[in-house]
Amino acid sequence: MLDQILRNNKKLKVSKSKRGPWKIESSSTAKNTRNFIREIIENIKVEPNPDKPLISLTIGDPTVYGNLKASNETIEAVIRAAEQGAHNGYAPAVGYHNAREAVADYLSQDGAEYSFQDIILCSGCSSSLEMCITVLADPLKGQNILVPRPGFPIYRTLAESIGVKVKYYNLIPEKDWEIDLEHLESLIDDNTAALILNNPSNPCGSVYSEYHLRRILEVAYNYQIPVIADEIYDRIVFPGNKFVSVASLNSRVPTLVCGGLAKRFLVPGWRVGWVAIHDQMGAFDCEVRQGLVKLSQRTIGCNTLIQGALPCILKNSPQNFFDNLIDTLMSNAKICFDILETAQGIIPYKPQGTMYMMVEIELEKFPEFDDGLKFGQKLVEEESVFCLPGECFEIPGFMRLVLTIPQELMEEACERIVDFCNRHYLF
Amino acid sequence: MLDQILRNNKKLKVSKSKRGPWKIESSSTAKNTRNFIREIIENIKVEPNPDKPLISLTIGDPTVYGNLKASNETIEAVIRAAEQGAHNGYAPAVGYHNAREAVADYLSQDGAEYSFQDIILCSGCSSSLEMCITVLADPLKGQNILVPRPGFPIYRTLAESIGVKVKYYNLIPEKDWEIDLEHLESLIDDNTAALILNNPSNPCGSVYSEYHLRRILEVAYNYQIPVIADEIYDRIVFPGNKFVSVASLNSRVPTLVCGGLAKRFLVPGWRVGWVAIHDQMGAFDCEVRQGLVKLSQRTIGCNTLIQGALPCILKNSPQNFFDNLIDTLMSNAKICFDILETAQGIIPYKPQGTMYMMVEIELEKFPEFDDGLKFGQKLVEEESVFCLPGECFEIPGFMRLVLTIPQELMEEACERIVDFCNRHYLF
Ligand SMILES: Cc1ncc(COP(=O)(O)O)c(C=O)c1O
Ligand SMILES: Cc1ncc(COP(=O)(O)O)c(C=O)c1O
Repeated sequence: MLDQILRNNKKLKVSKSKRGPWKIESSSTAKNTRNFIREIIENIKVEPNPDKPLISLTIGDPTVYGNLKASNETIEAVIRAAEQGAHNGYAPAVGYHNAREAVADYLSQDGAEYSFQDIILCSGCSSSLEMCITVLADPLKGQNILVPRPGFPIYRTLAESIGVKVKYYNLIPEKDWEIDLEHLESLIDDNTAALILNNPSNPCGSVYSEYHLRRILEVAYNYQIPVIADEIYDRIVFPGNKFVSVASLNSRVPTLVCGGLAKRFLVPGWRVGWVAIHDQMGAFDCEVRQGLVKLSQRTIGCNTLIQGALPCILKNSPQNFFDNLIDTLMSNAKICFDILETAQGIIPYKPQGTMYMMVEIELEKFPEFDDGLKFGQKLVEEESVFCLPGECFEIPGFMRLVLTIPQELMEEACERIVDFCNRHYLF
Repeated sequence: MLDQILRNNKKLKVSKSKRGPWKIESSSTAKNTRNFIREIIENIKVEPNPDKPLISLTIGDPTVYGNLKASNETIEAVIRAAEQGAHNGYAPAVGYHNAREAVADYLSQDGAEYSFQDIILCSGCSSSLEMCITVLADPLKGQNILVPRPGFPIYRTLAESIGVKVKYYNLIPEKDWEIDLEHLESLIDDNTAALILNNPSNPCGSVYSEYHLRRILEVAYNYQIPVIADEIYDRIVFPGNKFVSVASLNSRVPTLVCGGLAKRFLVPGWRVGWVAIHDQMGAFDCEVRQGLVKLSQRTIGCNTLIQGALPCILKNSPQNFFDNLIDTLMSNAKICFDILETAQGIIPYKPQGTMYMMVEIELEKFPEFDDGLKFGQKLVEEESVFCLPGECFEIPGFMRLVLTIPQELMEEACERIVDFCNRHYLF
């Protein structure tokens, strides 16, 4: 029949230009959706040294090596939910009432008060961030959001994908990666729709003090910029530091707190995230709350088995499970720091929490490498150790290590890095 | 500290208009995201008759009444995946290799050939549709998509939310809801980016013949409009009808087939969907394939436990499980039709598949009701039977019944509808 149509050469109402071999273009949105980490890594030709097994310190997935596992309580709760058979149907797009309530209770332990109505469950924290950026920032008005540099590239991906601009505010490495508040302030303009705050921070491993958070809030308050707080690493802080949720400070700054199960509960693949609305003054009441609910209805939230299990997961996961995670990360951080400190030409930065450590490369001491990408590439080639170059986080001259791998491997990786540095360092 | 700042009345670089009580606006995207079913239902004041238990025939969730349950094989596969502990980490954004392969095999049974590379896993079929609309239609170019009337309102929600226009093509009730091809053709213009085809259809319950599908493809081919095929009700067809995937016809029309576990596997809450790329001529190779992959990286796919279970779910669910679903739906459809046919002033349309039946209301025979909404409202008030008014699907004067409820309730509901009609019918 198709052939017949073609023979008939029927007159068409659309322009001729559409004829000819099909080549369907993708939308601007698709074109503007970029995976920055992938773009950078694809340009590094990674050929590990065949004589040394590859140790990858690149991916923020704590489950890769099998040394860190979800708690039995978590797994059993999901199995029970599956056995019960009561959690297979559609949940409300924002989540089951009692799952939302469980998240509200869990977050309220951090000092801000939430009710179930303040919680929207999402398909991973990535979706939470997507919803928050989408609801607050309007591309049609040319709006922008403020994001940290260095920072997790998803903020830029999500924003630019929908036509929202990003402006980078600087973090200060020497001050435990605190925000350069003057710089932050200088970026704000009439089109600034939100400030994204990531604490504890990927990639920095920093944990902000209450004092610093209050100073950030002052800026936000002063310019009436709502905050999107990415707290996916909530409570993953090392002894001597304290996780303070920015919402607990009860400033009058309307805040959307994003979080999820991915990191602290060691189940990133489960895609469970949330947005918690903290808004004492009701600035979100007229539109934003409703907007979030409507956005959640586009794709209808997260898996109901996990939602059914969520109250148990959040309440029953034992303290020693969390302690063990912190111990592992803390001890790996110490190992990393102590070993890398002995290397020539690199400066490790002690993390205060999270699963990452930043390392500065004194590139002038390694003149054979044009930049940090070349440094990283050569490190893979010679030592089979793969770290993410700072370029992935908009901070060239640094690299990020993950701290979640087994201790022997962590040691081995760091020793290889030391060998590499000492070999290439220009005396 | 905040107070101090306020006292200092520091000079701000942003305009004064931003000061005053906070009122954060939501974005155009949020404002343009509408839940049409909810908007309509909220306007119906639903006060069921306290003397009769409410029977809701509104929601396309087959699990609500507990008479239709996921197969044991499905549940056990997920429990095994949870026990194994190997499916908690991040999967690739497009899904695990073997989960994609399992979907490719499953869909290949319908006659089109797929490899795992053609499959992208998504968080429910809603996400699949969102990705397909987003990748093909460009709001910045003023593009539009063609959607069925009557049809599932999510197409409009997803499109308008991102600024893409929708144009409705008519379905013809008297011809088993086939597409009015002339009308379809008349809508196409240079800005038409995609044709959404929903077969089997919600709300119509129609199942298109191969002949009709070929004629639709001719139009698409002729105007070079790619097809988004919403086949979430794949294979849910009654004896005497045949499900034909539009991709199996191997036209040269590039097609994105959307599907998922929600309906046929009775687990809508699990949020598992897919996009299958069918594109013999490579029209999607230059941009669209890549665009879909990039879009999937924004929020990183669907739950990994279910992904881990997916090969078992798709391969091991026994035929009698599917037969039982069809039997239940078919028998309810027959009951509904036979009972409703005896009523005055309404015309039931026999479905050929899916979980729905459409019923026309001869409104001129019920002059006391201004419209179908009033008819539906009164039906709830007097008979405690709640059906979705056709307005939800852009077809006033109809109502949609779900066929998934237990048989006694189905009978009871239909009998009450008959009583209602006969009572209000104007002789
Ligand atoms: C800072 C930050 N925010 C958000 C996310 C995304 O979390 P999820 O996997 O729950 O989408 C990550 C993941 O690495 C992250 O590092
Ligand atoms: C025609 C149609 N497409 C898509 C969907 C969405 O499916 P899912 O629940 O997998 O997102 C539905 C749900 O009712 C539907 O009826």
